[in-house]
Amino acid sequence: MVKVGIIGVGTVGTSVAQILKDNADVISARAGVEIVVKSGVVKNLKKERGLDIIITDKVDEVLSDPEIDIVVELMGGVDEAFEVVKKALSNSKAVVTANKALLAYHRYELQEMAKDTAFLYEAAVAGGIPIINALRDGLSANHIESIMGIMNGTCNYMMTEMVNNGVAYETILKVAQDLGYAEADPEFDVGGFDAAHKLLILASIAYGIDAKPEDILIEGIQDVSSEDVAFAKEFGYAIKLLTIAKKDGSEVELRVHACLISKDEMIAKIDGVMNGISVVGDKVGETLYYGAGAGGDATASAVIADIISIARSGKSAPMLGFDKPMEGKLTLKPSANIESKYYLRINVNDKAGVLAKITKVFETHEISIKTLLQKSTSPSTANLLMSTHIAKESDIQAMMTEIEGLDFVNFKPVMIRIV
Amino acid sequence: MVKVGIIGVGTVGTSVAQILKDNADVISARAGVEIVVKSGVVKNLKKERGLDIIITDKVDEVLSDPEIDIVVELMGGVDEAFEVVKKALSNSKAVVTANKALLAYHRYELQEMAKDTAFLYEAAVAGGIPIINALRDGLSANHIESIMGIMNGTCNYMMTEMVNNGVAYETILKVAQDLGYAEADPEFDVGGFDAAHKLLILASIAYGIDAKPEDILIEGIQDVSSEDVAFAKEFGYAIKLLTIAKKDGSEVELRVHACLISKDEMIAKIDGVMNGISVVGDKVGETLYYGAGAGGDATASAVIADIISIARSGKSAPMLGFDKPMEGKLTLKPSANIESKYYLRINVNDKAGVLAKITKVFETHEISIKTLLQKSTSPSTANLLMSTHIAKESDIQAMMTEIEGLDFVNFKPVMIRIV
Repeated sequence: MVKVGIIGVGTVGTSVAQILKDNADVISARAGVEIVVKSGVVKNLKKERGLDIIITDKVDEVLSDPEIDIVVELMGGVDEAFEVVKKALSNSKAVVTANKALLAYHRYELQEMAKDTAFLYEAAVAGGIPIINALRDGLSANHIESIMGIMNGTCNYMMTEMVNNGVAYETILKVAQDLGYAEADPEFDVGGFDAAHKLLILASIAYGIDAKPEDILIEGIQDVSSEDVAFAKEFGYAIKLLTIAKKDGSEVELRVHACLISKDEMIAKIDGVMNGISVVGDKVGETLYYGAGAGGDATASAVIADIISIARSGKSAPMLGFDKPMEGKLTLKPSANIESKYYLRINVNDKAGVLAKITKVFETHEISIKTLLQKSTSPSTANLLMSTHIAKESDIQAMMTEIEGLDFVNFKPVMIRIV
Repeated sequence: MVKVGIIGVGTVGTSVAQILKDNADVISARAGVEIVVKSGVVKNLKKERGLDIIITDKVDEVLSDPEIDIVVELMGGVDEAFEVVKKALSNSKAVVTANKALLAYHRYELQEMAKDTAFLYEAAVAGGIPIINALRDGLSANHIESIMGIMNGTCNYMMTEMVNNGVAYETILKVAQDLGYAEADPEFDVGGFDAAHKLLILASIAYGIDAKPEDILIEGIQDVSSEDVAFAKEFGYAIKLLTIAKKDGSEVELRVHACLISKDEMIAKIDGVMNGISVVGDKVGETLYYGAGAGGDATASAVIADIISIARSGKSAPMLGFDKPMEGKLTLKPSANIESKYYLRINVNDKAGVLAKITKVFETHEISIKTLLQKSTSPSTANLLMSTHIAKESDIQAMMTEIEGLDFVNFKPVMIRIV
């Protein structure tokens, strides 16, 4: 059994504890060992969190607990978190963190201190998207030519609403605050600082660059106006707050700012609160990673992936992912039982009564028609282009066989499933 | 030093050997050890490959070579490859393969045999996209609800051309063959079998399902016609060959077939020969992975990522990706030297000669104007909305300072960089 202590049981910390319980079946099957949260540290002991773990306001009770294998740091901030993590490492605990500010300032010192233990931080960049994993392992054969990221959901939500729906900056900022996307003081998000912290982490993995926020160009989205939006639309651009890392000879550019970017680029298609990162490698070309960049459960998904990696006691994942079969093993559904919406193309001789006969067959098989287009293919023949509501594969197949046998139907009907 | 033997030195094998040489600086810095290809097995000894490795047509010379640490199987096919890989494993070699057909049929037997050594296969699914890594490690906290993949570039190229450009099926198939995307006998691609092999591998990692191609629904794109394309466009759909895995209670659906899918879905936005996989986890929500699914270098990128993982002697990647600093270390480019295209918004008093004075300032700073829009903002003021050709950050900043000081300019000019 692997025991976890959580420093900071807020939204993400609560999700981590809850998911380790909810998904214990699949998590223990993948990790090859049971993982439980033993204790958590909070500031306010009076708040009810609905978790069956030991709650304390004394961080040393967790850091010094010999039973704790993994310390999960979710307190945020730089200086205090740095002290906590250093102490955890010196007590030989493995550490998992989602704290991007800590890493933006202290990642190289932490790497040095964590030489003999595990220190993972997948959740620190782009929440649930496994971009650290991809960049560090998946693309390791490549010189990284560039990284372009949408790594602040608040800004992307605001820019999307401004460009797609013409909402004014001040209006959409207010909405973002009401929805809980933006803080009462939104400067950290809209000023580009949150995204910059994440960029610095990726830049280390891609280029081995040790830079701090103060060293790089950071601008926000505050000056983008409806006039700029109109210009962007006129010339086929989206407006995005992008984090950019770009190799140029022996130098690397690191910058965060609002950009006009062609709507044809994959990264420009990422709308709303979602995050995305485009990475160009010299051999693999462009790869792109998309998903939720924030939120308790999505961030916890990344935190727990790190916990599972460590629980595998430093080994790589089992070849096919599972160390042992999952409880309540899943079975393959017979194809005949698949349910879908369907599109059908039926070529018929165009004479009176044909449509009535076809629709009668649909009725017999209890398949409900959603749309119907009839198009002539010759003076005497026509295509019926139809879509259905949800139906069962075996019913559709039986119906198609019956339709194919009708004397006024030319060719075998064509079926394409609708997702 | 880690020594590699390649079984099958075709397009991908040649790329593997070439990239390990070209990118040796970054690869050895990340792996913490030098990685070299010692030997390769080919069928035709007479063909010149331009590689400085030992070339043989006797597979046992590589499999039995005590100096070889990692065997890379790139010969393709099922039965013969299975024998080769079994022998490599029994000789205690680590194995890396890109062979999806082998895994579609024998992955569980191979997992059993590879219990005590490494067996990696990132390149077997979606070429350069690190989807195995993401699904096995990055999303390990989640019950996987569904996977929807575009995992055959040939089919996606053909469907994209048919839907976006109205090209007929037979015409675009011929073009795909001429471009080398489709084989002379295209059945394996357009019939959905290639995609199905990849789906079965992902289904094992997501669900622990041991199914073979014969067990699941596999259809191709051969019956999609211009009428179907017209219907799709009418109702806002793209047409894609999708691989689908979906959890439904205790059952899992696995299927490959052409689909109509709403153009608003991220996966529907993946066009041309590119691949993409959307994975929905119960906690992380939707994540999507995009990149080149085929091609020598992209596939080799994944093969080498696996080789590097093994060369790290079973340990996880170093915290920040590099085990030692890269030779010819990269430095941060000063922000003043960044080059970009720029968009500028300058609010001016709308009187004669203003535009001439502004453009004169551009000329002084040697900044070239690409587009210019003038829009009135009041009876006496106007916005100049301008975009530039490539310019240097320090020049733009100096010019903006000068423009801000002009007596007919209202407010500080706004600048947004164009990517």
